Amino acid sequence: MINSGQLAADRLTEIAKISEDGPGVTRLPFTREHAVAVEMIESWMQDAGLQTHLDAAGTLVGRTNFTGATQTLYMGSHQDSVRQGGAYDGIMGIALPILALKELHNEGVVLPFNVEVLAFADEEGVRFPTALIGSRALTGTFDPDVLKLEDRDGISLEKAMQDFGLLPENIPNLKRNSDQALGFVEVHIEQGPVLQDANLSLGVVTAICGIERHSVTFHGVSGHAGTLPMRNRQDALVGASKLISFVHELALNTEHLRATVGALDISPNVVNAVPHEARLTVEIRSADDNVRSEAAQRFEVKAKEIAQTHGLKLNYDRTYAQHAQQCADSLKRPLTAAVEVHAGRALTLPSGATHDASAMADLGPIAMLFVRCKDGISHNPSEYASPEDMGDAINVIVLFLRSFPVWSKTLL
Amino acid sequence: MINSGQLAADRLTEIAKISEDGPGVTRLPFTREHAVAVEMIESWMQDAGLQTHLDAAGTLVGRTNFTGATQTLYMGSHQDSVRQGGAYDGIMGIALPILALKELHNEGVVLPFNVEVLAFADEEGVRFPTALIGSRALTGTFDPDVLKLEDRDGISLEKAMQDFGLLPENIPNLKRNSDQALGFVEVHIEQGPVLQDANLSLGVVTAICGIERHSVTFHGVSGHAGTLPMRNRQDALVGASKLISFVHELALNTEHLRATVGALDISPNVVNAVPHEARLTVEIRSADDNVRSEAAQRFEVKAKEIAQTHGLKLNYDRTYAQHAQQCADSLKRPLTAAVEVHAGRALTLPSGATHDASAMADLGPIAMLFVRCKDGISHNPSEYASPEDMGDAINVIVLFLRSFPVWSKTLL
Repeated sequence: MINSGQLAADRLTEIAKISEDGPGVTRLPFTREHAVAVEMIESWMQDAGLQTHLDAAGTLVGRTNFTGATQTLYMGSHQDSVRQGGAYDGIMGIALPILALKELHNEGVVLPFNVEVLAFADEEGVRFPTALIGSRALTGTFDPDVLKLEDRDGISLEKAMQDFGLLPENIPNLKRNSDQALGFVEVHIEQGPVLQDANLSLGVVTAICGIERHSVTFHGVSGHAGTLPMRNRQDALVGASKLISFVHELALNTEHLRATVGALDISPNVVNAVPHEARLTVEIRSADDNVRSEAAQRFEVKAKEIAQTHGLKLNYDRTYAQHAQQCADSLKRPLTAAVEVHAGRALTLPSGATHDASAMADLGPIAMLFVRCKDGISHNPSEYASPEDMGDAINVIVLFLRSFPVWSKTLL
Repeated sequence: MINSGQLAADRLTEIAKISEDGPGVTRLPFTREHAVAVEMIESWMQDAGLQTHLDAAGTLVGRTNFTGATQTLYMGSHQDSVRQGGAYDGIMGIALPILALKELHNEGVVLPFNVEVLAFADEEGVRFPTALIGSRALTGTFDPDVLKLEDRDGISLEKAMQDFGLLPENIPNLKRNSDQALGFVEVHIEQGPVLQDANLSLGVVTAICGIERHSVTFHGVSGHAGTLPMRNRQDALVGASKLISFVHELALNTEHLRATVGALDISPNVVNAVPHEARLTVEIRSADDNVRSEAAQRFEVKAKEIAQTHGLKLNYDRTYAQHAQQCADSLKRPLTAAVEVHAGRALTLPSGATHDASAMADLGPIAMLFVRCKDGISHNPSEYASPEDMGDAINVIVLFLRSFPVWSKTLL
């Protein structure tokens, strides 16, 4: 079993080399690097006895061929990375299920359902201003308009896919039948410190957090920092600072809420002038949509209060919202049971980040297994999951796949 | 008298046209625009009966020639502007004393001291990373090393001065004898809203504020805004926001203190990541050096407290400090008396901005007369002082010059 974890580590080290130059991994969809990665993943899949094909959305599919099975369980994740990202985010969720299926294959196990491991081309949305192309294709939610979107070199998504050897006009044919889908289980590095703090290698996700983003601008009046008396000031940055503190403290004191001011720009941004404009973003995440909505409302009310107190004008816009996706009991329970059998106890936690599973929820039930992430660092060259923890994950997937029919029959 | 104000307005409108292209006035030292401005100012000076010469630092000097007078009172200001600045800052302090001397000249008045009106080349420090060249030359504090400094086209100050027809090697000869200097009186637009709020055209400056600048960096730890729990965060922007609020509130509640966070930059500055770095400036101004020092100390203590509370590292540097310059009773009293005679009452106020007078204080006593500034707006094309207010200023200068010997004898 430890050998599986080491093999996973070796494979991930190997595929991490397939990257643009620079620190960490930069592997964008529909590029030369993507093509080379597809070849390597295909060899892993074939080594596990899977039948492979590249679909019209650029997703590499590896499928078991168990006779008599009519239902399919989907697994997998994305092959792409952010710029100068790590060697685990996404790609680990492809490598580990393949190694679990390799073990079953080597033992000659036949499951009463088929498994498809999906290596999606794009989840990060780094090259094109869209994301989740492959998963949306499978669920029938792919919007053909995004094919016109261009990367920073002016190449359209459509052109990039064609140059990659794909026929994007066939994407609508990829839609899967949800009656035959048992669901989608994604293995992913946690990208946070919760499992490390709990001293556990694995965790089961309860829900993928909903996200809401606000764009907030305070407009004040600039002036010379020496000549403008304090009483007359309409300092946009002072207003922003009050909102930043409020956002942080409300989230700190509210269960199931994360809220962040991540971006802030001020004008004129010089040492000796009162700032007349402060533009900031507020991002709110929660596995509970009510908690998120209530926080959103309180932030807006507070921003209005601040604007009034400091003589500022306020622009407050909700720029993005995505509701939370609950993980399904039909998958979460057997996954939790497998973790408990393996580790003695199972920690459940929400996923603060969005994943392929968010899109796959449109096809059927979803679940996620998180693997401990060193110091919570992700989207960074120093991202790390240990061979031992990945070995644990492979064991749990094997256990889950072997026990799954029992649970699914119970629930059906 | 109103005619003098209107003539001042006409002259300032005329000289404002001597500017680089673009909105407002852009007139930098040792340029074609500067040369044309010198010609125009020289004609104003000659019209007032003054003897003129351009000194080795590029200061145009216009001097009365009263026989028997051994002492000299200096007046004037700078001809240069910021980029896209206004038509009053600096240049008005040249135009108004000339018009006052023109009145005295027309009336055949002979003063018991001479007056030199100085049109300094550079006070703003926009073209070269140095300032106050002309005034420092007169006080003997000019540092010849600055001649090597270059503008953004790579032209050194020395080369620019030579191309302007000057001999910068003669600057050391410009030093005036302080025994023969009665002092320096500068007329300037307020650049703040105090006189407008008080419904007064003129004010007498008590002191030029000392300035202190701090460069503060909070270093935290970045992380995914969705996956990093609130409790584990070391958010550099949250730390910065607490300091920004503290700086504002302390200054708001402390007499004679102005404090501003004018610049703030954060990294990585994206919507979905916790900021790991926040770099900001704190600028502190006060006419009372003790008030400034105490505030500086409290800001640093507070920054340390914040860093400790939020698990941040702190870099805290004082990058600049300049002590306050008190205006001298020998000049301030007769100036105040002249304003009182003219307007019934005289408002006194500190100057939050630095001026040529700051450098001239090394030669002898200084004083400043502020002229009301529309809405406190300066360093901006919409900067404005009315002809009526400038007429008041000319009247007060005439009164001051006529009455000055009485006071100076009293005080000597």
